[in-house]
Amino acid sequence: MGRDLTTNAIRRSAPRALVALYLAVAAPTLAATPSAPAQAPSVAETVYTLRPVGWVRKADGTTTIEIDDHYRPALLGVDQLDALWVLYWFDRHDTPEGRSVLQVHPRGDPEQPLRGVFATRSPFRPNLIALSRVRVLAVRGNIIEIDGIDAYPDTPVLDLKP
Amino acid sequence: MGRDLTTNAIRRSAPRALVALYLAVAAPTLAATPSAPAQAPSVAETVYTLRPVGWVRKADGTTTIEIDDHYRPALLGVDQLDALWVLYWFDRHDTPEGRSVLQVHPRGDPEQPLRGVFATRSPFRPNLIALSRVRVLAVRGNIIEIDGIDAYPDTPVLDLKP
Repeated sequence: MGRDLTTNAIRRSAPRALVALYLAVAAPTLAATPSAPAQAPSVAETVYTLRPVGWVRKADGTTTIEIDDHYRPALLGVDQLDALWVLYWFDRHDTPEGRSVLQVHPRGDPEQPLRGVFATRSPFRPNLIALSRVRVLAVRGNIIEIDGIDAYPDTPVLDLKP
Repeated sequence: MGRDLTTNAIRRSAPRALVALYLAVAAPTLAATPSAPAQAPSVAETVYTLRPVGWVRKADGTTTIEIDDHYRPALLGVDQLDALWVLYWFDRHDTPEGRSVLQVHPRGDPEQPLRGVFATRSPFRPNLIALSRVRVLAVRGNIIEIDGIDAYPDTPVLDLKP
């Protein structure tokens, strides 16, 4: 409603090229603002957001998790744990195609019958969360030294749990 | 650059009120489109998105995971597993405040010394991912019957892994 009134007001007063520019740029922006209360979101509309809290680092034969300085207080007590769950993000597969894969041949072997990704550890899956158990060797400041992890260097880390 | 040229062209040709409208509505939209290659994102700018693939259901003493129909092909083979990791979302704590908690008193007991959330299973944490191991009792269509899970009914499920 608001959009149509504005659009008509501009049609009456503005040069044609400017109206075209307005319709191309501003009108879609206005149209994207709902004028009525939203209904309960459907699955497709429900989105949760994650931010990395750290990264896997690999150098000189040592594997560490570097926690972003902002999240360093969350490490209090991690030095007393023998092992941790590390939740991280398969960032190399974060594309619409990578996330649309629902079935895979296990170990990428076409001889193996297809399996649902929920029955595999495939890095292609709808939500790209990876899960590994690691041993805690030492904690120094915001750096956790671990025994190793099946992840590329600089992989974003999402969470740590005992 | 492109934005300034457009803005000046409009300044020359349009009534004053329309220029104000253009600057208020269209110019910010154009400004949000970077004209130079973006730098590597900082932590604060990096955001990953998740969508629920199903929900925890509890009824008549039975606990199930209902997988959204779209993701049903991803269940192929889950019926052959004895147990599953369930990753779900602490949706009751999905607020800026809930996600800013970095230290807690374990079990909410103020007598207990503070601990970093990465050393606890607190549902207050930066990324609200919960993790539980469950037994698979049966799979019927898009419904997985499990032995139980420490989650509220209708909690969104993010992923399943063997």
